[in-house]
Amino acid sequence: MSAKTAEILCVGTELLMGNIVNTNAAVISSELSGAGIDIYHQSVIGDNPERLKDAAELALSRSDILITTGGLGPTYDDLTKETVAKLLGVELYLDTESWESIKQYFASMNRELTENNKKQAMLPVGCTVFPNPNGTAPGFAIEKDGKTVIMLPGPPREMKPMLLNYAIPYLSRKSKDCLVSRNLYFFGIGEAVLEQRLKSLMESSRNPTVAPYAKTGEVMLRLTARVEKGSDASYLLDPVQKEIEAVAGEYLYGVDCSDLQTAAVRALSNARLTVSCAESCTGGLVAERITRVSGSSKVFRGGIVSYDNSAKISVLGVKPETIERFGAVSAETALEMAQCAAKLFRSDIAVSVTGNAGPQGSEDKPVGLVYIGICSPGYSDVITLNVKRRDDDIRSYVKEIASSNAIRLILKACQSF
Amino acid sequence: MSAKTAEILCVGTELLMGNIVNTNAAVISSELSGAGIDIYHQSVIGDNPERLKDAAELALSRSDILITTGGLGPTYDDLTKETVAKLLGVELYLDTESWESIKQYFASMNRELTENNKKQAMLPVGCTVFPNPNGTAPGFAIEKDGKTVIMLPGPPREMKPMLLNYAIPYLSRKSKDCLVSRNLYFFGIGEAVLEQRLKSLMESSRNPTVAPYAKTGEVMLRLTARVEKGSDASYLLDPVQKEIEAVAGEYLYGVDCSDLQTAAVRALSNARLTVSCAESCTGGLVAERITRVSGSSKVFRGGIVSYDNSAKISVLGVKPETIERFGAVSAETALEMAQCAAKLFRSDIAVSVTGNAGPQGSEDKPVGLVYIGICSPGYSDVITLNVKRRDDDIRSYVKEIASSNAIRLILKACQSF
Repeated sequence: MSAKTAEILCVGTELLMGNIVNTNAAVISSELSGAGIDIYHQSVIGDNPERLKDAAELALSRSDILITTGGLGPTYDDLTKETVAKLLGVELYLDTESWESIKQYFASMNRELTENNKKQAMLPVGCTVFPNPNGTAPGFAIEKDGKTVIMLPGPPREMKPMLLNYAIPYLSRKSKDCLVSRNLYFFGIGEAVLEQRLKSLMESSRNPTVAPYAKTGEVMLRLTARVEKGSDASYLLDPVQKEIEAVAGEYLYGVDCSDLQTAAVRALSNARLTVSCAESCTGGLVAERITRVSGSSKVFRGGIVSYDNSAKISVLGVKPETIERFGAVSAETALEMAQCAAKLFRSDIAVSVTGNAGPQGSEDKPVGLVYIGICSPGYSDVITLNVKRRDDDIRSYVKEIASSNAIRLILKACQSF
Repeated sequence: MSAKTAEILCVGTELLMGNIVNTNAAVISSELSGAGIDIYHQSVIGDNPERLKDAAELALSRSDILITTGGLGPTYDDLTKETVAKLLGVELYLDTESWESIKQYFASMNRELTENNKKQAMLPVGCTVFPNPNGTAPGFAIEKDGKTVIMLPGPPREMKPMLLNYAIPYLSRKSKDCLVSRNLYFFGIGEAVLEQRLKSLMESSRNPTVAPYAKTGEVMLRLTARVEKGSDASYLLDPVQKEIEAVAGEYLYGVDCSDLQTAAVRALSNARLTVSCAESCTGGLVAERITRVSGSSKVFRGGIVSYDNSAKISVLGVKPETIERFGAVSAETALEMAQCAAKLFRSDIAVSVTGNAGPQGSEDKPVGLVYIGICSPGYSDVITLNVKRRDDDIRSYVKEIASSNAIRLILKACQSF
């Protein structure tokens, strides 16, 4: 497969005005990169036919593939399809199958159909239709003069499934090879340090390639191997994963598992263990993250957000002396909070968080000082964090980092059983 | 002020690869719109000098103001500044003040300074420097041939303060007028319905303009008045706000308060009331949202995440008969959960959530069925939600909508005191 270049053109005045963040561009870029397609440009344009035409023309002059999002709606200012079809010199026709789907969608949502909606079923002659089970506007791909144009709807929850289920497979079908990715998730090691340890591997490895991605407090390494369609990529991926584990295995918390809470729920589930939590400064974020995972109800017993000191004593059952002597933000209180949670919820494992999330700190309890306790029949521990960042939103940062560490401790505790 | 046009050029291969979402573009767009500057284009380009030059040249050919983000770092592939300065025909000089700040920043973070970092203090001759207290790269504005170029660093936590504290004031200084906005926040009414009720007002009102912005389950209306610098805009904003309140006042929950939890913490604080919560399907999200607000520790006593039925009974104190007779997902259980929380945490107000967040539903407890209970000495109530959406991430949607409704009920309860 010769590397094709694609560019992304997102249409919508609400993007230009900054009313919404353009998550579509990131999702499409990431998926196209994964499919081995290079992207050199992303642009955003309003619902203005003249500027839209110029932007599409420029894109087609410099890239092989143009992917648009937005402007496929039923109203008069949704003009992406009409403008691009005109530019390509292609007529629109009423796609009866799409029109039937739209009618069914409206019926299922008990919403009234208007004549306007017919506009959404008008598609360029010769296109490959991409159905939209999550909305009304179908998407499509059309080829003209060696260029491919793919048009997708704007709402992310309609765009993303269509991209994954139709657009990427459409583009991949044109290739002999395919790309197989494996994502390795690390926690507790910075991107810079991990990169340093893996520098020579990352530079020398061509198949698979090894690329790092950082997010708050975490690093993901993506190994991407190119193989002939239908063949297994493990023989390429396994040895490289082993090399990586040899230098950073202690920080690896999961493979292809998307996030810490999913890895934790999976580990608890596999070990048939239950967990509970007692949170102070994270304010419920540990529980909230665990319960984001489908299936968490089988392993998560519950949690207490003991924000107030009196709640730590009366609801959770921490001894008043502990708080008096060591303070609410202390290793001793953290450990007792975890023990109390385990007892109250009768869970195998319990985790606790107490700390100062800011914005106000004191000399002995500075902003970012957090204690995390963990206990299980065979294991108990308290770790101390000093979360530092110059930031106007230090609260949410401390909450995020502290909750990640708490969930990481749950994972470790599973391994001690 | 004649309306100027600006465009945004974000530089960074990590944006093009989809490793990170371009939040900078949305923040800049929104602030520029607020300052009365029109934006017709946003683009993203990698760290490639040739394509960067083309993109900057195109931008300057069609817009008055070019704002770039990214590529101001110390490494060899950070080339935005060098490329744009060359395009403008301007030399770079070592800005000693910026160089001193960079040295101080490294010292304060205990990080080692390298000769590379000097590159960050090289700025175009004749520019206005924007200091960067949150990082190393300073930003700046430079005027040439009637065009303005503003260059900002890439990391959002460095970019945003510099935009708000330096770039927007820089652009505003050139104008006689200023724009004053007032944001009205609505909950419980859809964007389409609100727009319909306000259609003629939105179309006819010129000063202030009235524009709607939707986010999950909420609508925000922004009134923007143009007045002479230094004068009060209330005489323009007040009458329009009154008109809006006359047709949708029951859904208005706050003015310039940014979100439901901030409005709730503010209302509790003003009324000197405390709150607690008992959550099942939201898994801690109500507590987590309340504790995002700085100052929430004064009003939030705590919460219980009683995910498991046994936890509802043993920890929260719900009567086993209630759950047996009506089910965990029922109005009766919801009310008792709230009452138990109020008693346990000795709070003035307590809110509870129990429901099915999915993905699996049953005939009598379908996904999206949620009961929310509220109690306070003078007031108690249970509301029923049927959250519907065809979605692959129904869990997070149900959690979000349910928690918003719970927080809205806390606000209402404050008003009943």
